[in-house]
Amino acid sequence: MINVGIVGVTGFAGEELLDILLRHPEVRISYLSAKIDKPTPISQIFPRLKGKIDLVCKKPEIKEIVNQCDLVFLALPHTVSMEFVPALLRAKKRVIDLSADYRLKDTKVYAQFYKVNHKDKLHLNEAVYGLPEIYRHRIKQARLIANPGCYPTVIILSLAPLVALEVIDPASIIIDAKSGVSGAGRRLAESFLFTEINEDFKAYKVGVHQHTPEIEQELSRLGGKKIKVTFVPHLLPLTRGILATIYARKDKKLKNKSQNLINLYRRFYKKEPFIRIRQEDISPRLRDVVGTNFCDISIKDNPDTVIVIATIDNLLKGASGQAVQNFNIMYGFREDTALV
Amino acid sequence: MINVGIVGVTGFAGEELLDILLRHPEVRISYLSAKIDKPTPISQIFPRLKGKIDLVCKKPEIKEIVNQCDLVFLALPHTVSMEFVPALLRAKKRVIDLSADYRLKDTKVYAQFYKVNHKDKLHLNEAVYGLPEIYRHRIKQARLIANPGCYPTVIILSLAPLVALEVIDPASIIIDAKSGVSGAGRRLAESFLFTEINEDFKAYKVGVHQHTPEIEQELSRLGGKKIKVTFVPHLLPLTRGILATIYARKDKKLKNKSQNLINLYRRFYKKEPFIRIRQEDISPRLRDVVGTNFCDISIKDNPDTVIVIATIDNLLKGASGQAVQNFNIMYGFREDTALV
Amino acid sequence: MINVGIVGVTGFAGEELLDILLRHPEVRISYLSAKIDKPTPISQIFPRLKGKIDLVCKKPEIKEIVNQCDLVFLALPHTVSMEFVPALLRAKKRVIDLSADYRLKDTKVYAQFYKVNHKDKLHLNEAVYGLPEIYRHRIKQARLIANPGCYPTVIILSLAPLVALEVIDPASIIIDAKSGVSGAGRRLAESFLFTEINEDFKAYKVGVHQHTPEIEQELSRLGGKKIKVTFVPHLLPLTRGILATIYARKDKKLKNKSQNLINLYRRFYKKEPFIRIRQEDISPRLRDVVGTNFCDISIKDNPDTVIVIATIDNLLKGASGQAVQNFNIMYGFREDTALV
Amino acid sequence: MINVGIVGVTGFAGEELLDILLRHPEVRISYLSAKIDKPTPISQIFPRLKGKIDLVCKKPEIKEIVNQCDLVFLALPHTVSMEFVPALLRAKKRVIDLSADYRLKDTKVYAQFYKVNHKDKLHLNEAVYGLPEIYRHRIKQARLIANPGCYPTVIILSLAPLVALEVIDPASIIIDAKSGVSGAGRRLAESFLFTEINEDFKAYKVGVHQHTPEIEQELSRLGGKKIKVTFVPHLLPLTRGILATIYARKDKKLKNKSQNLINLYRRFYKKEPFIRIRQEDISPRLRDVVGTNFCDISIKDNPDTVIVIATIDNLLKGASGQAVQNFNIMYGFREDTALV
Repeated sequence: MINVGIVGVTGFAGEELLDILLRHPEVRISYLSAKIDKPTPISQIFPRLKGKIDLVCKKPEIKEIVNQCDLVFLALPHTVSMEFVPALLRAKKRVIDLSADYRLKDTKVYAQFYKVNHKDKLHLNEAVYGLPEIYRHRIKQARLIANPGCYPTVIILSLAPLVALEVIDPASIIIDAKSGVSGAGRRLAESFLFTEINEDFKAYKVGVHQHTPEIEQELSRLGGKKIKVTFVPHLLPLTRGILATIYARKDKKLKNKSQNLINLYRRFYKKEPFIRIRQEDISPRLRDVVGTNFCDISIKDNPDTVIVIATIDNLLKGASGQAVQNFNIMYGFREDTALV
Repeated sequence: MINVGIVGVTGFAGEELLDILLRHPEVRISYLSAKIDKPTPISQIFPRLKGKIDLVCKKPEIKEIVNQCDLVFLALPHTVSMEFVPALLRAKKRVIDLSADYRLKDTKVYAQFYKVNHKDKLHLNEAVYGLPEIYRHRIKQARLIANPGCYPTVIILSLAPLVALEVIDPASIIIDAKSGVSGAGRRLAESFLFTEINEDFKAYKVGVHQHTPEIEQELSRLGGKKIKVTFVPHLLPLTRGILATIYARKDKKLKNKSQNLINLYRRFYKKEPFIRIRQEDISPRLRDVVGTNFCDISIKDNPDTVIVIATIDNLLKGASGQAVQNFNIMYGFREDTALV
Repeated sequence: MINVGIVGVTGFAGEELLDILLRHPEVRISYLSAKIDKPTPISQIFPRLKGKIDLVCKKPEIKEIVNQCDLVFLALPHTVSMEFVPALLRAKKRVIDLSADYRLKDTKVYAQFYKVNHKDKLHLNEAVYGLPEIYRHRIKQARLIANPGCYPTVIILSLAPLVALEVIDPASIIIDAKSGVSGAGRRLAESFLFTEINEDFKAYKVGVHQHTPEIEQELSRLGGKKIKVTFVPHLLPLTRGILATIYARKDKKLKNKSQNLINLYRRFYKKEPFIRIRQEDISPRLRDVVGTNFCDISIKDNPDTVIVIATIDNLLKGASGQAVQNFNIMYGFREDTALV
Repeated sequence: MINVGIVGVTGFAGEELLDILLRHPEVRISYLSAKIDKPTPISQIFPRLKGKIDLVCKKPEIKEIVNQCDLVFLALPHTVSMEFVPALLRAKKRVIDLSADYRLKDTKVYAQFYKVNHKDKLHLNEAVYGLPEIYRHRIKQARLIANPGCYPTVIILSLAPLVALEVIDPASIIIDAKSGVSGAGRRLAESFLFTEINEDFKAYKVGVHQHTPEIEQELSRLGGKKIKVTFVPHLLPLTRGILATIYARKDKKLKNKSQNLINLYRRFYKKEPFIRIRQEDISPRLRDVVGTNFCDISIKDNPDTVIVIATIDNLLKGASGQAVQNFNIMYGFREDTALV
């Protein structure tokens, strides 16, 4: 049994982690903390957990975390995680960080998008970007996982085969993404009130979303060259799920080459337990992935253009599900243990 | 043309008032104010109004209101209205107050439910409860209208014929009401976030809702005796509308008397432009009243029990529509002017 | 391992059963059928099940069911189940019927509400009403379970302690219930279109809902006398969940007796794994039970009246979850096996 | 007063037309028909209209239409309109057709997308495409208006300045559009059930939507050359509104020319009463246009790419509002008469 802690258990990602880990046969949840005034039984914070777990949730303290955990999930706001990571690694703990703090290798870009200087360059390089489909072998050895953002997860998975195999013109990528409201976390702002979102739909942060550099960093690595994307996120009036519709022009050299793009994706993701490639005429829908760790992908192969449509549950494959998938890889458990 | 001002124009009720008054042929909107940092064109606050109205919205100041208005709608939070009313009445202005401040005649009850002592007992007695179907004649002469709450409007209209004509046992009234989220106003609280309300439903303030004494006060007046009700409000995952399902036992004396309750309602509300009595087997639905000033009512007449189901748009007949209906009565305009 | 079949697997209840049974460690799903044109892999009907189950779904045939199953769940429309049950019981199979066909002991009432004469009076008496909190001992021995309706489940559980212990006047029961749309099944009718239900709310079948006699039959058994109820169901614009708000007058003899009703409920349901009694001031909300087999109950104890508010997931405790709970009891498994 | 008829008044577009025309000061609604079994008062079909209009709705008959109307709105399914138009024009009536039957000038393309041969080539050429911002002068004289589709309206308005002024590479246009469910009409199909659409989101008809040729025909006319687009529509879980996010590469010649695209749009639509150009950093949202005839447009001018985001109410500017706008132009009324 691995002793596991969750720091930031009262946010959406933390709550989801708790639900998954409660059914993990190899996990003992040994520590829970959150930004709360006084120690409170977790079953009081989430009444539906009464009878399932007795732990008391406290304000986070490094010493307690170190004493009680083998591995810690940090489900903290961006810029807060890096205050915890150094001490945890020094104490020989393993860390899966769900924030953005260890995702961007370029600290200037981090400072530009997250409005604060990076405080832990020492461990930034060591951090492994936790996308199992790309970095599984490095994840196995990692002490520190930078768990990917929700948009980057579905977008990188959608584009990886096209970029890695040089099927498309990398300068032509357009990403039109749509996310449910839980993607913003449990944030108290007027724009997230029910009366603001119900029966409405809009784009936001057009061209300036903080996930853009994360997407570009990873696509650039995969493509072996600098890649820039056009990324427009939109806000759906529903709770969970992301659907990304991605457009790219084919590389000119390949236009006349006959190849089946769907088969190319199937081969690329052959052994992946959580990638499902759809048939050309069946577009994915949110409801087939919500509540699961799956990423569904369809590919429409037009003469000049490729259209890729993909879906995930932003709180599972886009956050806590993927975090547990990484955990399973780190400890050699079946990759889908506790995941649906 | 009447010069009309709205104080508190950025709340839901204020915004709705603005929309209605903009199409009122006898109104010149002469003044707009709200709790804002600096004077701002209203078309900047509500971009959809660009080209329709040029007025600048400011922090409210009694002097300006008095200079620029014949009548003022106060769309302010409870306990704030009574800070404005005395000065406005002294300056010979007419006031339609959408808050609860002048609805409850008993200041002890007011203090108990609104947690503050009443500061303007002088005008409390003068205030006319603005339910046109009951108090039309007094509204005509009024200087100060206490515009009814949303729940009380639909509930009193539903019960008035039964109570006034002594059809039911007044001790047996049970009111199970369901409201859309806009009923709570534009309030920034975690419980009103989209992610909290979407796909959820619950009762709230069971037996302690602040509209209970308002309902009881008016039913008692109609029935000529002290009436207490059981009132349980619920929160619907939709933006607009209230549906109340009301149960009462028939008065024993009347059980054997054959009378058609639907006809009784039709007679009671014969000339009312905004009351629609449904046939027994057609229950009202929210969508038939949302966006209108109508109150739809159905009556199910069982051997021992009467079930009344009624609907209104909480922001129109339940607030701003009714306020304009009162305004029309006060100035002798057709009662449905500017109302749908 | 028990060989289990589902007849009617493509409806909401059937699909939900399949999901639960797939994670049941003692079950081998051996047979699936539905009203379909030609045999089709279930993973083609529900693409999200790809890789989880290989079975082919066919038109139901008694002979095949008998050959391949130890126990069959019938998730069929009312009046269809009774065409299957006699042959299955003759072949010594156990049956859990999710339709209404074996719930009402009085065939005249059945004919009145379901518009068809009962065809299997022989087995009607043998059928055990599958509400474990009331009939657990009889369920253990049963060959044929009449799985309760969704409204009756939450309503009977809410009222059982009050009725059995004679706390209330049984003539005074008023049930105001609100259900999500999945309660109607996957029915193709204009009134269930998205554009009809979104942002709307209404009562339906006021006083004539087919679950009324089922509720009355069971309450009458519990109370030891004929009990009639007033039952008004409403349709919520959301997918899953039922909330019932129930009102009853206290029995006069008990008004002066001091007793704590919440404690009374806690004792009544002391060992029940799926009943959670809330504290007086915490009303249940749908989201705490959706996706689970729990029934949450709160009791508000007023001087003259009791208000009980209770919630279930209509497809789980209100249908398929309860069916599996019954299955677990029949075979001596832990009652919450495979249930959340 | 113009005598106006609506054929197909029970569909979404017909119902919306009725609401608008009821408040039109120059219109006498003289005829209503729909696919119904027997003549029925329209206030019985739409109970909320009780007291507002008395007309009886019947099965459509050419002779009656001709006798009672000066102008007819046809709100009929595609392929049905062309059975009515020839007789109406022969009888010297004016017709505004909301179906697709007279939009596509190429009958081969019509046959390909609507699966039926065109039956009225005679009047096809005469029909004027009813997009006032482009064809206002021809609309004034027209006897037969082909009222544009909902997607084409918002998309052509979004792209017209860029295409007409040759700002973009016309081969690079990508249209990612999202529509509310009412866009599909009052269609009884399983995929439009509440339980299918609620909390879901998906693309549909990827690359094969029947509005594609309509968009391409009009953009080609504006650009003076054959233009093909990539068009992917998606289905939003809400009732009303379309938001289109449109991407195009700038024409190479213009890349270095400094020009302000927002000003270019402002000039292009200078006198248009229903086009609102947003500031660069304010993306339009559905709620600002729902219930109105406005089209809101924002332009994001990147170095290589232009991103245009635009919104309309699919039933108003995308159907019935635009139809009345055309009607107003045809008869010389103020263009926004009866329109919000």
